[in-house]
Amino acid sequence: MVKIFEDYKEVYERVKKGVNKTPVMTSRTLNSLVGDAKVYIKCENFQRTGSFKFRGAWNALNCLTDEKKNRGIIAHSSGNHAQAVALAATSLGIKAIIVMPENAPKVKKEATNRYGAEIVISGNDPLDREKLADELVQDKGYTLVHPHDNKNVYLGAGTAAYELIKEVGQLDMLLVPVGGGGLLSGSSIAAKGLCPDIKIIAVEPKNADDAFRSFYDKQLYPSINPQTIADGLRTSLGKNTFKVILEKVDKIITVTEDQIVDAMQFYWERMKLVVEPSGAVSLAGLLYNDEISPWTKGAKIGVIISGGNIDLSEFFTLIRKKLPKN
Amino acid sequence: MVKIFEDYKEVYERVKKGVNKTPVMTSRTLNSLVGDAKVYIKCENFQRTGSFKFRGAWNALNCLTDEKKNRGIIAHSSGNHAQAVALAATSLGIKAIIVMPENAPKVKKEATNRYGAEIVISGNDPLDREKLADELVQDKGYTLVHPHDNKNVYLGAGTAAYELIKEVGQLDMLLVPVGGGGLLSGSSIAAKGLCPDIKIIAVEPKNADDAFRSFYDKQLYPSINPQTIADGLRTSLGKNTFKVILEKVDKIITVTEDQIVDAMQFYWERMKLVVEPSGAVSLAGLLYNDEISPWTKGAKIGVIISGGNIDLSEFFTLIRKKLPKN
Repeated sequence: MVKIFEDYKEVYERVKKGVNKTPVMTSRTLNSLVGDAKVYIKCENFQRTGSFKFRGAWNALNCLTDEKKNRGIIAHSSGNHAQAVALAATSLGIKAIIVMPENAPKVKKEATNRYGAEIVISGNDPLDREKLADELVQDKGYTLVHPHDNKNVYLGAGTAAYELIKEVGQLDMLLVPVGGGGLLSGSSIAAKGLCPDIKIIAVEPKNADDAFRSFYDKQLYPSINPQTIADGLRTSLGKNTFKVILEKVDKIITVTEDQIVDAMQFYWERMKLVVEPSGAVSLAGLLYNDEISPWTKGAKIGVIISGGNIDLSEFFTLIRKKLPKN
Repeated sequence: MVKIFEDYKEVYERVKKGVNKTPVMTSRTLNSLVGDAKVYIKCENFQRTGSFKFRGAWNALNCLTDEKKNRGIIAHSSGNHAQAVALAATSLGIKAIIVMPENAPKVKKEATNRYGAEIVISGNDPLDREKLADELVQDKGYTLVHPHDNKNVYLGAGTAAYELIKEVGQLDMLLVPVGGGGLLSGSSIAAKGLCPDIKIIAVEPKNADDAFRSFYDKQLYPSINPQTIADGLRTSLGKNTFKVILEKVDKIITVTEDQIVDAMQFYWERMKLVVEPSGAVSLAGLLYNDEISPWTKGAKIGVIISGGNIDLSEFFTLIRKKLPKN
């Protein structure tokens, strides 16, 4: 894997031309809650399109040959990857098709549309999406941009960790949410390359613990209809991301649904950050999982927020109902 | 007023030892909405205690004589000033009494308590608070720290604008919310000192337009029971802040309740920033008031978010109700 790390500077040079350098936030209260640690929060909720996914999409599209760029690309997603691919493609003048399920939230369809992609509607089963995308790849020659199990996508995602460590220096520990494993595998490669002694801790909802079980059994289990508020972490690991994770990750821990919301509330109320449930999972692990608390005292700890895309329409409807008349 | 500006560097040197240097955020979407302007958002929601008020409290307490520090200080507030004074006093080892009305929200009492102040409960009428505070000043020799009509408080508040301009350079326009006028008067002095040609635009809820009317009639009108969601902007201007405002401010514009919520929603959804209604008023002015739109094209514009303290308990109760079981 040394070769992969040596490539990282090159990856970052390519990525930084398009992505936001996101801020690193700190909180005195948080530091004191975690054994006088120094906690550095990498805020990918401030990334373009509202999640780290833009890093991977940008990197992967830039790595395509001109011929593939000219033919156009395709992605299937009902979430953050859709918006990321749509905007990256538009910015680079590449035609983008996004396959979305019929029941995808209107707000996500609108955002994908706003970023300039063409939406193709599939059936609601995840397999319907993949099948339709595969057919369009066959028929039209589009290139599929997988949400995580693609080396250029996950290396791009990992520039979040690369950028964090370049800014704040050596870290003792890095906590990363895990769903499909793109952010986790890229971040592990980047972080272990820069800080060989760092502990990489993946955090997963207990209700979607396929990565946890796969990691400790060393056998890839699929995620089957998991019930978690962390909608970005419901997917299965990829074959490629799983290999990287087995090699680079030190521990996978799980958190309950309540802990995810508690961490989210800490971000919103105490740090004034809009973070989506999936994005708050890494902090939930740091705050509430006893397995890692022996390691935190006085440590320098990185925590990645993966994104901030959450539907706020219900909340704002409530606020508007109570407004005084003008 | 030149003398006051010359002091500003000194004010900032004192303030920066205690306050957070808050981030400046930008948004490509926002820039394109405002005639290809460059908009720089100064995020005082990330200030300690969640609002710009900490700047003024820190500056004022540091300017007290040792004798006054030893006797202790008092403030009356049900909002952001209470928390700011409480934390500044605790950090400096000064005893702090905060007079709060009986009906102040529990969450605000708790926060003030957490920051280490002693709370004294008054009646619910604003005059009750002031009367009780005055009595304690007489009886105990405490020094009153007024929320805005105190030179060291408003000069401290203005370091938000000073810091913004020092970071991003000359600005053509600065938009600031106005309630009691502390943030506005300090920011005007700092900004006009650094950029003599800058236009200072104060923004006020239409439903609490006492500053608007006072400014154009050149006569100080009190704010009488205004009905606005922007709870931080319900107070009257001070005598001293009004004088500065008459001299330094170029225009006061008003925004409707709906416009305030629309701007807030833009911050939350598009910029992932938790901003309270009062804090979103300046952006509402930029986005929705036709009077200033002729000036925005291609301009460099500063917008101050005053704070991010909003009660989210109802929102999180909603979220928790829908959680899957673990």
